Amino acid sequence: MTAQQFLHIRSVDDARARFGAVWAPGAPRTEVVALAHAGGRVLGRDVLSPEDLPPHPRSVVDGYAVRATDTFGASEGLPAYLAVVGEVPMGRLPGRAVGPGEAVWIPTGGVLPPGADAVVMVEHTELLPGGPPAAGAGGASAVEGIEIRRPAAPGENVIRPGEDIRRGHAVLRAGTFLRPQHVGLLAGLGITRVDATVPPRVAILSTGDEVVSPERNPEAGQVRDINGPALCAAVEAEGAQAVFCGIVPDRFEALLEATRAARENADLVLISGGSSVGLRDEVSRAIDAVGPPGVLVHGVAMKPGKPVVLGLCGGTPIVGLPGHPTTVLVVFHVFVREIIGRLQARAGEPTPVVQARLARRVASAAGRTDYLRVRLEHRDGALWAVPILGKSGLISTMAEADGLAVVPEAVEGIEMGDVVTVEVFAR
Amino acid sequence: MTAQQFLHIRSVDDARARFGAVWAPGAPRTEVVALAHAGGRVLGRDVLSPEDLPPHPRSVVDGYAVRATDTFGASEGLPAYLAVVGEVPMGRLPGRAVGPGEAVWIPTGGVLPPGADAVVMVEHTELLPGGPPAAGAGGASAVEGIEIRRPAAPGENVIRPGEDIRRGHAVLRAGTFLRPQHVGLLAGLGITRVDATVPPRVAILSTGDEVVSPERNPEAGQVRDINGPALCAAVEAEGAQAVFCGIVPDRFEALLEATRAARENADLVLISGGSSVGLRDEVSRAIDAVGPPGVLVHGVAMKPGKPVVLGLCGGTPIVGLPGHPTTVLVVFHVFVREIIGRLQARAGEPTPVVQARLARRVASAAGRTDYLRVRLEHRDGALWAVPILGKSGLISTMAEADGLAVVPEAVEGIEMGDVVTVEVFAR
Repeated sequence: MTAQQFLHIRSVDDARARFGAVWAPGAPRTEVVALAHAGGRVLGRDVLSPEDLPPHPRSVVDGYAVRATDTFGASEGLPAYLAVVGEVPMGRLPGRAVGPGEAVWIPTGGVLPPGADAVVMVEHTELLPGGPPAAGAGGASAVEGIEIRRPAAPGENVIRPGEDIRRGHAVLRAGTFLRPQHVGLLAGLGITRVDATVPPRVAILSTGDEVVSPERNPEAGQVRDINGPALCAAVEAEGAQAVFCGIVPDRFEALLEATRAARENADLVLISGGSSVGLRDEVSRAIDAVGPPGVLVHGVAMKPGKPVVLGLCGGTPIVGLPGHPTTVLVVFHVFVREIIGRLQARAGEPTPVVQARLARRVASAAGRTDYLRVRLEHRDGALWAVPILGKSGLISTMAEADGLAVVPEAVEGIEMGDVVTVEVFAR
Repeated sequence: MTAQQFLHIRSVDDARARFGAVWAPGAPRTEVVALAHAGGRVLGRDVLSPEDLPPHPRSVVDGYAVRATDTFGASEGLPAYLAVVGEVPMGRLPGRAVGPGEAVWIPTGGVLPPGADAVVMVEHTELLPGGPPAAGAGGASAVEGIEIRRPAAPGENVIRPGEDIRRGHAVLRAGTFLRPQHVGLLAGLGITRVDATVPPRVAILSTGDEVVSPERNPEAGQVRDINGPALCAAVEAEGAQAVFCGIVPDRFEALLEATRAARENADLVLISGGSSVGLRDEVSRAIDAVGPPGVLVHGVAMKPGKPVVLGLCGGTPIVGLPGHPTTVLVVFHVFVREIIGRLQARAGEPTPVVQARLARRVASAAGRTDYLRVRLEHRDGALWAVPILGKSGLISTMAEADGLAVVPEAVEGIEMGDVVTVEVFAR
């Protein structure tokens, strides 16, 4: 019953490195997606800008388009005076150029008229009805003038053509997770369809003779499947497609057949359960039997999650997630998210973390990474991470958690009040 | 053109407080959702557990179910010996009870047999073929024995009935954002349908004579709508339903009519654009004209985003988001996310933040909250927030950002290397 297990326990980083060194995912398939549905998807190829953005020089303030040289030397004591000779209409090209000694009213977003090279904010001008007092400036049509009490630099308050985006420039790289600002950027360039990576298909198997579907009323000794639904939700939250493949009994042949079938049509297979030592070995054996190279990592120095199995069969990753629901979700957080990200060819991003003070002392064995379920609480102006007590078999402890406080390998324990890094659960 | 504006500039906190004091959202509507689609939704009412979880005492390890008293005093020098009289089958109730001096093999997840009150991990036992050496213990059927070298406490490695969830207990509160662990918990209780809040409908209006739909080829002086698509994506990312209501020209009557129509069928109206001073005033006037109480906040001491308008018309919040695309998304981040959360009656959660060192000195006016677009970079073992330079009119600067570094009101500037809080963009 004990069997040979954990022949080679690895650290979390070693396990990632070992798996990453052997597994080389192919380029993901892409599909065309309308921009309105592209938020939350991963970009499948670089996007090159088809044009300059903006196409024309634009003002970023309300004010007067001027020739900067006309304002040089302007001061409180010696203001510059300009004749206002017109206004730039929104949405059209300016009607006339700005000559020496002239100014044209321009709204935010308006196109800079020819001749002008700067915009003076309206707040920095004084309107003079009846035109400028000085003789030198202004055309015959000037009915108003403005007084300017400080010089404008060439280019001031102006966005140059192509300053936002230059034509032909790769504005977004393949692998970008498309946030609202990226959608806006693409819209601004007139790109209303994008190549997005096809969400990877993730097959999910639950195992255990005692496990029944949540729809069923368990008989004495049976329990409802928690891991299957939880993993489906976790997979979907990562932008992948969950394919639940059912509950498999604790027999090697059944497990092998189900794993083979699951792998047929999936980019990744997750097998949860096998918390009993015997079943854990069956999962490893099944992975080895499905195809080479088979099991790459069996046993990681982490708590919870030590019996995790990372395997690869003919290019398809297969992960064995040990049985308790909380453990399954920690293993998902630590290993599976990254695998899904690589399947999407998603560019790496830092996991959101917060620094918080640990609200009670915890012990931890050296040489092992501990993931503590914690609740985050603001107290006395500081953020505290409150460890949630309870056996790792209790899903309720995970349900209360805001994230996982990480106790690194080299650390033997953390005193109350010490600062820890908490990996926050994604929203 | 300058008009009366910013009569009462408020701090970010004051603006939130003022708006929050006047607006009392009603209870959100709920709808029944299958558990398989409940991930990412917000729970509409408390969930009471219909039963104890687990229903029977269960082992959390592979080992031997025993009477704890039989192990008291066991030590390396004086082990306890027990007869192994059977094994607990998975998925069924145990076949027989554990008597004094007896042990029964139990797999992880197995139901504890009557008589037993603890489980000794298999790793802490020694199997003795042929039964226990001592005379006192064991039934006639014992073919094997075990040696135990340390005492087990009553309840050790056992989850009591109801220890995870007690029947009738509120396991999840209304307002919970449903993560994978919550889905698993509900599945474990056999709850396969939940009451979720109906995603709020958010109407989105873009304004500006120069703005055309992204599908169109802009003529000279025109620009494509960036804010509309970006806000739609931002709204959907918050779990709400975006309803784009089109691009409205810069005329008060058109704006009023469009705002009225948008409000008819929405829980929240967002009006972007109006970066020019004149149009900003039009947005305020329209909000006041649609219905009381009208504009509550006009002008906030923040950068970017100073001209933001927060209004309320007959219970429907209406937000005016000033024109530049980056500004629009900052205002969304600071004010609109919270309003959507309240519409969903979503329980408050801390915004994910990271602490990082600012990679260059920045100045900031006292009395104003600055939101700097920053890129996060790991360098020399520390996390650095690199401010992205460029005018706030450039959407490309926002597209590069991982989050917003907050320079609080009371701070006048931040030196290079000082630690700042970065609000990380949601995934």
